[in-house]
Amino acid sequence: MLSHEDIENIISRSLFNLEIKGEPESLYRPIEYMISVGGKRIRPRFCLTVFNLFSNNVGNNIIYPAIALEIFHEFTLIHDDIMDKSDTRRNQPTVVKKWGINNAILSGDVMLILACKYISFCNSEVMPEAMRLFTETAVKVCEGQQLDMDFEEKSFITMADYISMIGFKTGVLIACSAEMGALIAGVSGEVRKAIHQFGYQLGLAFQIADDYLDTFGDQQIFGKKIGGDIINNKKTWLQVECIRRAEGADKERLTSILEMGEDMSDEKIAAMQQLYIDLGIRDDARDAILEYHNRAFEAISGIGLTEAQTRQLHQFAEQLIYREK
Amino acid sequence: MLSHEDIENIISRSLFNLEIKGEPESLYRPIEYMISVGGKRIRPRFCLTVFNLFSNNVGNNIIYPAIALEIFHEFTLIHDDIMDKSDTRRNQPTVVKKWGINNAILSGDVMLILACKYISFCNSEVMPEAMRLFTETAVKVCEGQQLDMDFEEKSFITMADYISMIGFKTGVLIACSAEMGALIAGVSGEVRKAIHQFGYQLGLAFQIADDYLDTFGDQQIFGKKIGGDIINNKKTWLQVECIRRAEGADKERLTSILEMGEDMSDEKIAAMQQLYIDLGIRDDARDAILEYHNRAFEAISGIGLTEAQTRQLHQFAEQLIYREK
Repeated sequence: MLSHEDIENIISRSLFNLEIKGEPESLYRPIEYMISVGGKRIRPRFCLTVFNLFSNNVGNNIIYPAIALEIFHEFTLIHDDIMDKSDTRRNQPTVVKKWGINNAILSGDVMLILACKYISFCNSEVMPEAMRLFTETAVKVCEGQQLDMDFEEKSFITMADYISMIGFKTGVLIACSAEMGALIAGVSGEVRKAIHQFGYQLGLAFQIADDYLDTFGDQQIFGKKIGGDIINNKKTWLQVECIRRAEGADKERLTSILEMGEDMSDEKIAAMQQLYIDLGIRDDARDAILEYHNRAFEAISGIGLTEAQTRQLHQFAEQLIYREK
Repeated sequence: MLSHEDIENIISRSLFNLEIKGEPESLYRPIEYMISVGGKRIRPRFCLTVFNLFSNNVGNNIIYPAIALEIFHEFTLIHDDIMDKSDTRRNQPTVVKKWGINNAILSGDVMLILACKYISFCNSEVMPEAMRLFTETAVKVCEGQQLDMDFEEKSFITMADYISMIGFKTGVLIACSAEMGALIAGVSGEVRKAIHQFGYQLGLAFQIADDYLDTFGDQQIFGKKIGGDIINNKKTWLQVECIRRAEGADKERLTSILEMGEDMSDEKIAAMQQLYIDLGIRDDARDAILEYHNRAFEAISGIGLTEAQTRQLHQFAEQLIYREK
């Protein structure tokens, strides 16, 4: 079995070697930029990690589909940043900020097409299944973004709404990454379904960890300003739970925090962090992350993985959940 | 062999039966709208026409890929209309006008994903080729849109630039439609290459006919206001040729026409039409359409089509080129 570091290296090298260049330059420069700025490459790493549990035959027929998942993810970031009017991402200017709306739309479109293309580099026996899995997932991710935008118009959503939305926006693609690895390795039936469920639950844990770190992370390590979600009144696990839970004087505290403007951003962050702590939401967020993490491992408890295979997945999950950035 | 009317009916019925509905409604309503407003459905009809030259086995494995080409085309229209800030298309408000930029981006994204999905409904033996053909074509269409936007910044482009740009924006997708039909019917090698070339040249003829009709069409039949390209100083075959050809007093006439503002749109249209006529450009545009039409048929002259097959393609080409709308 490859080490996590080996897998990371294969993914980075393969993305680097893609050399997405072409004419017109104005179309390809944003794509190169987006890929080079990079992130944690969770989706392709997860895909390859799961593949490698079942097969040692690591070649282009798994590497390209794995990379396709990263390119698809980056496409969603480019288009989401237009819709959310975001100026920075990963501490760098966004594509829309740097090149404008038109280039951001079209470069994103090309990335989506490239993602479809690279998925189809899998072996031909599994291609119909791989295309179905990928395209159905991709549609759901778009549905999740639409839900997210629709929810932004509402002052209140339930926790069930929130979990459903992050399930679409984040869960299904991480589930697809795991299932794609299993599918291309030749795994079918109940085992593949369990792997999908494993990825889905882990994806929810990952998103809640993301929400948690945006509010309680270490700024130095997290790599971006803490409290961005609070300043923007963004619907996160913490905020949804806080609105659900706050009563009486706490509810008044919450309302006045949500009404604080941009000129009071430091006070707003500090006040909301304190409210979360006072209501026990900080601790409960950690518990929720752990709960989804545990559900993930329950999903695969009966499929007969060896100790070594399970250990590999535990290590991957820990990087995902107990990360600091 | 199916009649052209049969083919048109199969395509319309299949698009109608797609029933693209789902949640959130805000995502799917623009897609339904775009498909229902409809157009000439040239790409799926061409795909099915070519398929049916070689195979009578018309089932979902050709109908879905044919429809995928229409859905891809409609996706490009939605995103192009954002970039070009267009308010109307086919005499109806555009998606961006009706639902705003964010919904137009995301609904377009879903259509692109659905196009990829429906291409993969072809038979599995040809799937790797079909995916390669489709994704490489789709990337080129985006490159064409970028070229178009880059060219809009320039006051002058050569005829070679123009032909190259419409080759990317229009030619390659029509070529892909024809080739996809041949590929799924089991045609390979030189015959398929010739069919591709046939589609490409016919695509150029189609685009120049579009340019021609926008300026010299019959408004009642064309279905939209004549002269839109002239008002917007759009780079068309006619305009590029006019800039190339006008000298002395004609050049001054041209410059003053190009400078006329929106308040003089009727005069502008009439003056430009007259200049095109005086310089022989109206007649030459018709000749250019005929020339590309003839090149298309030269491309398939040596591949051994029967008289009936050739007649079918001639009838299709005539609908495409000698149309009035």
